[in-house]
Parts: sequence; structure tokens; C-alpha cells
Amino acid sequence: MIFMPENKKYANLESIIHPRSVAVIGASENPDKVGHIIMGNYVDGGFPGKLYPVNINSTGTIMGIKSYKSVLDVKAEVDLAVIAVPAAIVPAVLDECGRAGVKGVVIVSGGFAEVGNVDLQNEVEKVAKRYPMPVIGPNCLGIMDPRSRNNTLFLPSFKIDKPKIGGISFASQSGAVGSSVLDMINHEGFGLARFISYGNAVVVDEVDILNYLMHDKETKVIVFYIEGVKRGKEFMEVAREVTKIKPVVIIKGGITEAGAGAAHSHTAALTGSYQAYEAVFRQCGFSIASDLKDLLNFAKIFSTQPLATGNRIAIVTNGGGTGVITTDALYKSGLKLATLSKDSETSLRKVMPSIVNIRLPLDLAGDADDKRFGDALNAVENDDNVDAIVTIALFQTPGADSKLAESLIHFGTQMKKPMVVISMGGSFTQAHKAIMESAGLPVYGSPSEAASSLVALIDYSKYRGKIL
Amino acid sequence: MIFMPENKKYANLESIIHPRSVAVIGASENPDKVGHIIMGNYVDGGFPGKLYPVNINSTGTIMGIKSYKSVLDVKAEVDLAVIAVPAAIVPAVLDECGRAGVKGVVIVSGGFAEVGNVDLQNEVEKVAKRYPMPVIGPNCLGIMDPRSRNNTLFLPSFKIDKPKIGGISFASQSGAVGSSVLDMINHEGFGLARFISYGNAVVVDEVDILNYLMHDKETKVIVFYIEGVKRGKEFMEVAREVTKIKPVVIIKGGITEAGAGAAHSHTAALTGSYQAYEAVFRQCGFSIASDLKDLLNFAKIFSTQPLATGNRIAIVTNGGGTGVITTDALYKSGLKLATLSKDSETSLRKVMPSIVNIRLPLDLAGDADDKRFGDALNAVENDDNVDAIVTIALFQTPGADSKLAESLIHFGTQMKKPMVVISMGGSFTQAHKAIMESAGLPVYGSPSEAASSLVALIDYSKYRGKIL
Repeated sequence: MIFMPENKKYANLESIIHPRSVAVIGASENPDKVGHIIMGNYVDGGFPGKLYPVNINSTGTIMGIKSYKSVLDVKAEVDLAVIAVPAAIVPAVLDECGRAGVKGVVIVSGGFAEVGNVDLQNEVEKVAKRYPMPVIGPNCLGIMDPRSRNNTLFLPSFKIDKPKIGGISFASQSGAVGSSVLDMINHEGFGLARFISYGNAVVVDEVDILNYLMHDKETKVIVFYIEGVKRGKEFMEVAREVTKIKPVVIIKGGITEAGAGAAHSHTAALTGSYQAYEAVFRQCGFSIASDLKDLLNFAKIFSTQPLATGNRIAIVTNGGGTGVITTDALYKSGLKLATLSKDSETSLRKVMPSIVNIRLPLDLAGDADDKRFGDALNAVENDDNVDAIVTIALFQTPGADSKLAESLIHFGTQMKKPMVVISMGGSFTQAHKAIMESAGLPVYGSPSEAASSLVALIDYSKYRGKIL
Repeated sequence: MIFMPENKKYANLESIIHPRSVAVIGASENPDKVGHIIMGNYVDGGFPGKLYPVNINSTGTIMGIKSYKSVLDVKAEVDLAVIAVPAAIVPAVLDECGRAGVKGVVIVSGGFAEVGNVDLQNEVEKVAKRYPMPVIGPNCLGIMDPRSRNNTLFLPSFKIDKPKIGGISFASQSGAVGSSVLDMINHEGFGLARFISYGNAVVVDEVDILNYLMHDKETKVIVFYIEGVKRGKEFMEVAREVTKIKPVVIIKGGITEAGAGAAHSHTAALTGSYQAYEAVFRQCGFSIASDLKDLLNFAKIFSTQPLATGNRIAIVTNGGGTGVITTDALYKSGLKLATLSKDSETSLRKVMPSIVNIRLPLDLAGDADDKRFGDALNAVENDDNVDAIVTIALFQTPGADSKLAESLIHFGTQMKKPMVVISMGGSFTQAHKAIMESAGLPVYGSPSEAASSLVALIDYSKYRGKIL
């Protein structure tokens, strides 16, 4: 065994994240059983590796696949064992995994410290730590990794949108927060790298997950829901390392006294003082989300846009009032409007209709089409006074159509400055929002969401030394 | 003519809002013309009253309907004249309306103070004030009133969702803000009473509109986007009156210096100091929105839920972590968790599974179904310690389905306490959100949106003396 420093002991999650072979312990023909749903994920999801259903009562096959009474009977390399058996027998099953040389374990079973069974949880920890294998859980949803088709989520699959393969990795102590935010990420189509629901964290914890995701080349941005941190010093060490490489968006549950009380009975974590956490998060360069929706909003900009080189914003809009409200939102957030260069003014004056005032926010008027937006975006893209762009595209207007969406995709995915779009409205707007988002352009449904996401990007750009 | 006090001179907008006869001045066979789109609204929208197309070049009929060269030629009662002609001839056309005894006018044409043509706008004002008729505009979208099928919006109709008839009235100085927020209201199906886009407000202004909506029995909640107020004293007078009767949700554009600069070139309004505005708004009992999305979020709760009698909140959830974050959001907003009564504790302990801790937030666990939610909601509904309810229904979970949506609709639309729902996620969740919202239950996509909407309701309940 290779020597690993204590704080990286369980950081090698490769076998858990993209295993070549999976044993599902608690596999079942009964569709109501968790072990059945998890088997279905692999069978129906086209998992390309070896699958070993394990059930003490098995009589030959489960779901058409040769089954085993114990993981010890498999007699082949098992990268990942998923344990979905009643809590009381988890320690024994886990010990068998250790003895069988399983490389990694996810315990999805609940019924431990979160319902007061502290002794049983301690037993799990004691057994796990006899072996080198990393163990995720218990009381968690486990892993979804669309690249390797690894999926331990035991929720009805039609209730969660399918992920697109992409660069967002999301780790959540809470399964409920995990699945709903995962569903939001999948719905908006920004692309998932890894999803890790890690529950009570008896072995693999926040520190291990950060260590793993830091070096994971598929992960462009890390999104984190935590309720508490067990190893504060190690957490700070790895946090400072990871934000040198990639952004981390974090929200902590239990920041008020009442919320902390609720968190304690939930995953049995000690929440500590939020002021202390917030100070640590800021020192480490984390982007602090103040609402669950920010997790998605910030991930959208981080996973698609370059870092900024300043905080001077150009607003280009086809709605005057929305430009006014967005200007307010930027200034309330500590950002500011850019001032157009003389060159931009001159070139814009030549191409814009006389009713357009050449100043920021640049109100292109309600009849603006893709051509007028293109002329405007071309000017601000090339203006050295502009660091980032907010484009307000209101699709209720006569000139806004899928050609405009296409033009915004062109600018927003190719230019070297960050750009976000604001589009608000009903069915026609939502259809165009989906088109733009599936192409990798962050679109927000309100000025304040766009502003707070830009602030997250700009603050992190400062942390990374891109803004002097 | 009946004597009207100066501040109510133009408050009778009946003929403009639900006219029995409409003249469209600038009506045209050319589909690119604003006058054509507006004619189409009435013809295709099933407007039940009389329709008089007017165009100086008309030769008998427009869109199959007998047409007139001037409104003076109509020789019948005209409740509403919609003016959609080039700016330069608006004063002359408006004068004809006055001489013809038209009862109300909407000028949708732009090209006045907002592009520097102050003299022309002054001319419009001078002409208008010779006559008793209220005049809305210029530079506006005008009226959408689904009850009377009155619709002057000259935007492509397929780009805006159709409104359901309901209790939200929305007045907007800005056409862009107006149409996008209107589209959001229509999309979520909460039901529209009147939409009034009033633009440069040369005659009918904020004061007149508040006066009208105050006494309009179809209007349950008033939503307002303003950039400035022309008659401060009268505005305060009517504001204090209206909030005694119904809630007003307001957002002011141009609250920062930069935003104010943008507003000035937009509708040529003077924005004044925001601190002064905010103080006035609060004194008058307005609910201040800090983002455009709040306009919809607050309207949802005000148009469907009763006022609260206190600020003690029960959270009922099928997701532990989301309960924690929502608890945090409530406390950050100045609300607090209720403490369950002994009776509730006893009755809940009898019906809940042992894994459910009987305390708030009440975490029903990931397998909760409509029955378990129903038992929980029944208890908190009847608990005198609980003033309002936040139900977190995560539809990714095994027990959450359309039966749960139906149960939540039952509770949320019938109980005497306010209730809101938080549901976050993708397609499956959005489908159930739409079902619940179309039945009149406010559903929010994040804890902070639910919390800020509850705060708006509770603050207004205090203002109305419902909370001591």
C-alpha cells in the first residue's frame, strides 16, 4: 500500500466514482426494494462493467444476472460495493466487503446516528477503518456519474431529469438537497461531472471529497452542500489548495441557531458558529451561496464563462425598464457600469437607429433584432473599458426570435469576456432559454440572480489574481 | 359633468379598461403595422363590442370591417380610442378624439419625451387637458383586460402566454418590464385582473391608476412598476387609502444613482431620492419588491392566501436538508419557527413512523406520501401555536406524486392560515408545480423566495392590524 498523508487517506475515490465492476448488496427482484431500484439503474442504464447482485437469500439469479449469497463468493475484483441492506446487518456486510478486498463502498442504508443509533454508526466506522477502502455514507444517495453510467440513486428515475455530461460536480451531505438541486442542474442542461451524496460521512468526508474533486480533470466547478465539517484544519488546508485550481460554490445548512438545531437531528452534524465558517469560506476563496438556487446559478456561470479581468459591466438590452432595474441590481451588488470608449461610441452611433442613446445601459429599443444585438455585442466585446457583459433579451418583443438566441449563443460561448443573459417570461421565453442554456450560455430569470452570479465570478476572479 | 376632486379627475378608467366600443386609429391591412396587430387582438380575440377601424387612407373596410377616415366620422359612442399613428400627428388625432366625445384614449405611439421630443409631448398634454377624457400614454403598451377581451398590446401574441382571469392587477410605467412580468404572471396561471402599461403618463398617472384599482372589485392585489412619481402629495394620499383595502406590491426603477440616470433617458421621469421613496412606501403599507421576480412571487401569495395572524411558522418537509435551509431562510428574514402544542405532539406521535422526530421543522422523511403529509398538515392547521405553514414537497422522492399535489391543493386553498409550498427540480417537479399553481397554491422554487414572500404577507398583515 502506498503511503498517504492522513488527510488524503480516503481521497482516492476512483473505484467508487467510475468502477469497472459493481456488487449490489441487497439486490432484489422486489421492485419496492432499494436494491432493486439500484440494480435497475445499472441494467437499464447501460452500465458497461461487470455487475454482481448479492443477496443472502439469492437462489441463482437476480434480474436475470448470476447472483451471490455474499460478496465473498464473487471471487473476482469488485471496484464498488453498494450496500442496501437493513441497518443492523450493515457492519457484518461491510466487514465481508473488507475481507473480499472490495476497493470502495457506498452504504445507502439509513437508520444510524440520524435517528439516534449512534452505537451502530460507531460500529460501522470501526469496521470500515480496519480496511483501506474508502466508504461513503451511510444514510445517503451515493453516486451519479453520467460518464461511467454509475448510479446508486434509489429514487424513481422518471422523477429526476437525465444529466448531460459536463463539468459541474455536486457533493451534498443531504440527500434531499442533493436530489432536488441535481434535478435542477440536469433540467437546465449545464452538464454534470460527478454527483456525490455522502450522508453521515463516517469515513469519507468533506475533506476527502474536496481532495478527490480537486484533481479530477472532468470537474470544472465544485458545488457543495454541507451541514458541518468534522476536520476543520484539514478542511482549510485542502480548501486553500482547491480554489487555486477551480471554483467552489458552497452553502452551509444550519447557519441560524434554529437551523442548526434542525440540522443536528437531520444528519447528526455539529454545525458550529456560522460566523467562523463564513470567515473560513471567504479566506479560502469559496463562493458562498445564500440560497439553494444560488448553487445552480453560480455553477452556470462558473462552468461556462471565463474569469473576469475587472468589474466594469456593459448592459445591452431590448427593454429600457429592465435595463434600469439591472443597473440598480449591479450597483446594489457592488459592481458598476462601464463607460464606453470613444471608438465604441463612434462605431455604435454609425450603426444604431437615431432613437438609441449611445450610453450604458445600451437600450436597443423594443424592435431590436439579432442584427442590432450583434452590432452592440461586437462593440462591447472589443471595448477595453468593458470587463463583462449582461445581455437582456426579452423575447416578448417583435425582433426577438431563435435567430437572436443563436446570435447570443455565438457571442456568449466564444468571447473572452464573461457574458450572461437575462430573459424573463412564459412559454416562448422558456423555450429560448432552454435553447441558449443547452448550448452553454448562462440565462437568468431576474436581474438580481444575474447580478449575484456575476459577483460570485468577479470575486473569485479577484481571488485568483485576475483582477488587480 | 360630475365634479371630481383634482386628484381623482382621471380616476374613472372604466371606458378604457372595459369598453363596449373601440376605435383603432392607425388601423391597417399591413401586418407590420402596430395598428394591424391591435386590430387583430380584437378581431381574433373575440372582442364582443363594436369595433371602428380608423385610417386617413381608408377606402371602405379594414380587415373586413367598415372603416373611417377620422374618428369624427364614426358618429356613434366610442368608449375607447387607441391611437397608433406617427408621433407628429398624435396631437391632431387626439384633438379629434376629444371633439368626437370619445370617453377614453390610449396612445401607444412612441417618439416623445423619451427620445427628447419634449415639446411634442407638451403639445399632447395641452390637447388632452382640453377634454374630460382620461388619456393613457404615450409610449406605452396600453391595456390587457381578459374579462372584457380588451387588448391594445402590439406584441406578437404567440410570444406572451394567455392570461387566466383572476385577481392580480399589474401597472407598469415600462412596457418591457410590463410585458415580461405579465408573461410570467400568465405563465404561472395565477390570474390577471387588469394590465396597464402607462408609459410617459402625460395625463393618467400613478395616482389615477391607484385610485381606479383601489375601487375595482376584480382587483385583489395591485402590482406596480414605477420609475418616478409626479404628484407626491396626492400619491401618498391615495396610497394610504388603497392599502387599507388591498395589498400593493411595488418596485421602483432607478434606486441607485446609475439606475436613476438610465431611467431618465428611458421614460424621462425624475426619480428622486430612493431613501425618500422607500420611507414613503413603507409608511403607506406597500410591499417593496427588491427584484422583478418578487413582483410575481409576492402577487402569488397575496392573490391566493389569507392574511396572517402572527409570524410563527410551521415547516413540514419530506427533505431534511431543505428543512434546515428553509429554517435558516425564515430566521434571516425575521420570522421564526412555531413550537408545536402538546396536543399536536401527542396526535402526531400516534400517526407518524418512529423515525420522524416530532418537532419543527417536521421532517416526514423521504418516503412520506400524501397520507403522511395530510396527517402533518391537519395537525399544524389546527394548532393555535402555528400562524402560517411552509410545506416543502420534493417530488424526486418515492412518495411524492400527483396525489400529494392534490392533497396540498386541498390544504393550501381551504385552510384559514396562509400556506406556501417549496418544490425544486426538473420536469417532473415543474409539472406538479404547474398543477398546484393552476389550482391557486403559491409554489416557490427556493427557500429564500418562499421566505421573502411570507415576510411580505406578514408585514402587510401587521400593517392591516391582523397581528398585534
